Amino acid sequence: MSQAPAINHQVRLAARPVGLPRQSDWRFTSEPVREPAEGEVLIKNLYLSLDPAMRGWMNEGRSYIRPVAIDEVMRAGGIGRVIASTSPRFAVGDHVSGTLGVQEYWTGKADDREAALHKVDPALPLPKYLNALGMPGMTAYFGLLDIGQPKPGETVVVSGAAGAVGQTVGQVAKHKGCRVVGIAGGKEKCDFVVNELGFDACIDYKNGSVREGLKQHCPKGVDIYFDNVGGDILDDVLAKLAMKARIIICGAISQYNNTTPVKGPANYLSLLVNRARMEGMVVFDYADRYHVAMAEMAGWMKEGSFRSREDIVRGLDKFPEALLMLFEGKNFGKLVLQVADET
Amino acid sequence: MSQAPAINHQVRLAARPVGLPRQSDWRFTSEPVREPAEGEVLIKNLYLSLDPAMRGWMNEGRSYIRPVAIDEVMRAGGIGRVIASTSPRFAVGDHVSGTLGVQEYWTGKADDREAALHKVDPALPLPKYLNALGMPGMTAYFGLLDIGQPKPGETVVVSGAAGAVGQTVGQVAKHKGCRVVGIAGGKEKCDFVVNELGFDACIDYKNGSVREGLKQHCPKGVDIYFDNVGGDILDDVLAKLAMKARIIICGAISQYNNTTPVKGPANYLSLLVNRARMEGMVVFDYADRYHVAMAEMAGWMKEGSFRSREDIVRGLDKFPEALLMLFEGKNFGKLVLQVADET
Repeated sequence: MSQAPAINHQVRLAARPVGLPRQSDWRFTSEPVREPAEGEVLIKNLYLSLDPAMRGWMNEGRSYIRPVAIDEVMRAGGIGRVIASTSPRFAVGDHVSGTLGVQEYWTGKADDREAALHKVDPALPLPKYLNALGMPGMTAYFGLLDIGQPKPGETVVVSGAAGAVGQTVGQVAKHKGCRVVGIAGGKEKCDFVVNELGFDACIDYKNGSVREGLKQHCPKGVDIYFDNVGGDILDDVLAKLAMKARIIICGAISQYNNTTPVKGPANYLSLLVNRARMEGMVVFDYADRYHVAMAEMAGWMKEGSFRSREDIVRGLDKFPEALLMLFEGKNFGKLVLQVADET
Repeated sequence: MSQAPAINHQVRLAARPVGLPRQSDWRFTSEPVREPAEGEVLIKNLYLSLDPAMRGWMNEGRSYIRPVAIDEVMRAGGIGRVIASTSPRFAVGDHVSGTLGVQEYWTGKADDREAALHKVDPALPLPKYLNALGMPGMTAYFGLLDIGQPKPGETVVVSGAAGAVGQTVGQVAKHKGCRVVGIAGGKEKCDFVVNELGFDACIDYKNGSVREGLKQHCPKGVDIYFDNVGGDILDDVLAKLAMKARIIICGAISQYNNTTPVKGPANYLSLLVNRARMEGMVVFDYADRYHVAMAEMAGWMKEGSFRSREDIVRGLDKFPEALLMLFEGKNFGKLVLQVADET
């Protein structure tokens, strides 16, 4: 950084959205890139993770993480390259994962708690660290294994099957000997999870009845349901639970943009009839075991028994419209915003 | 039974109710009392248990127990006295608990599976065997301890606090060192659970906001919620969960007579934020450990540290209107129908 300082383009939260976020809920700003002070690093952002959870961070009020403040740079996980450092922890050229924000550069303490920077190995494609080897993968792995406790031969159903979390849930469940049924929107996504990822079946909720699909593909009922969507699909699965079933509540993308109250699961008394349980999880609780999950899944990737698909959109300015793709089911695979070239 | 056979008056299900059961959903019949054949017993019914669950048994369709058939004698647990026996398991004069039905006499095999007859000790008042020492008590005990897993110092909230299950949940929780907050309808019931049963507080849902009450009485949030009612109260508690909270789904009396779909808990995503779980239970699963619960609670009763209250209505013909008391919250304590004098 011996030249004149570069410009850092940023996307800030301008207003708390009502329903789907609109262009006017965002403000594009720019400021000079800040040089690292003592103990700090400067990172050039390469890939940003676009996640359904972002919608929740935009709301006011108590949740598992503080809301993004008005005028603050929008929170986002990302992968970047260290381009200046005064910290012994990171060297120029290192690739790092962390909470880098929807912007082109990040400057801050190497040990900043919110950023939670850590090095990643560029031997694997970098976007994988926002997918199976990142938060979605960790969510899938620990939600399925710790909360779901799958046993070989059990039937696992996952919604959002072609999405970031769903891809990993299904493949980890297959590795653990389960029968896996996905739920996804459209033939192309369903074909992908069956033919490319090895799910046993996939129900296309856009072209048919989920209830009929469950009847056909889960003749012994659903032992584990990993719920990413909520709404009617959650109710359909509740109606097909096996005894002692476990439901992992990971998200409810169908409800995040509601301007009316959330639709609670009307069939929740199926929990009683089936002695079943529904449990929520937040991935951060498993941080001290991320390395275990990453090692196991990276191993499967290297041996070719685990795949993941990303849907990469280019350009920081595309952030607002790219985010909407998630809520319309338009992304195919983990949605990633590329904000700079790798080299 | 050397005299001419007595008459057995019975209440049979005439029609499947829509909404609250009406008089026309019942048929009163009578038939001669049947003498016991080989291996059978004849029981004179004394007390019958009236339970919210009865409403569910009247519906068609799959549940945790088969529905009562049209024209069948309505199912009910009860306490009776053996008045004739050809089985070595029971002698004339024995008091027994079992599924005796809404009728004056029961004749059948001593080892009938559905009836599940077992002797009770008449040293304790017989209605206790339909309350704390019966199904409601077993439900409360195992639901709280096995599903809830209370730790000393935790805050336990129970709805229907003055009802059969609620009374026991609260007192067992106090014995296990928890802070206990009841929810009940009316000042009289609230005073009872606080002053007579030793709850720490009680929220009167008929005269004030449950949400405000929870705020006041559960400053650290709710660790365990034992839900007997569902509906809005379940949503209010979901909004006040502590981290890692457990909700025991025992029933949903507010929803049993709906003619519209069940109201699902709109705040269920609080399970995610708080890493909490919601789990259903059915008491029959714990049958092999009933004796443990009965011994512990009978011990507390004898030492004076455990009370229970019954609300006794007299006369088999009062069954239809007595049952409705449950859904209007008119009973005060475990509702029992006395169908004959003890002596």
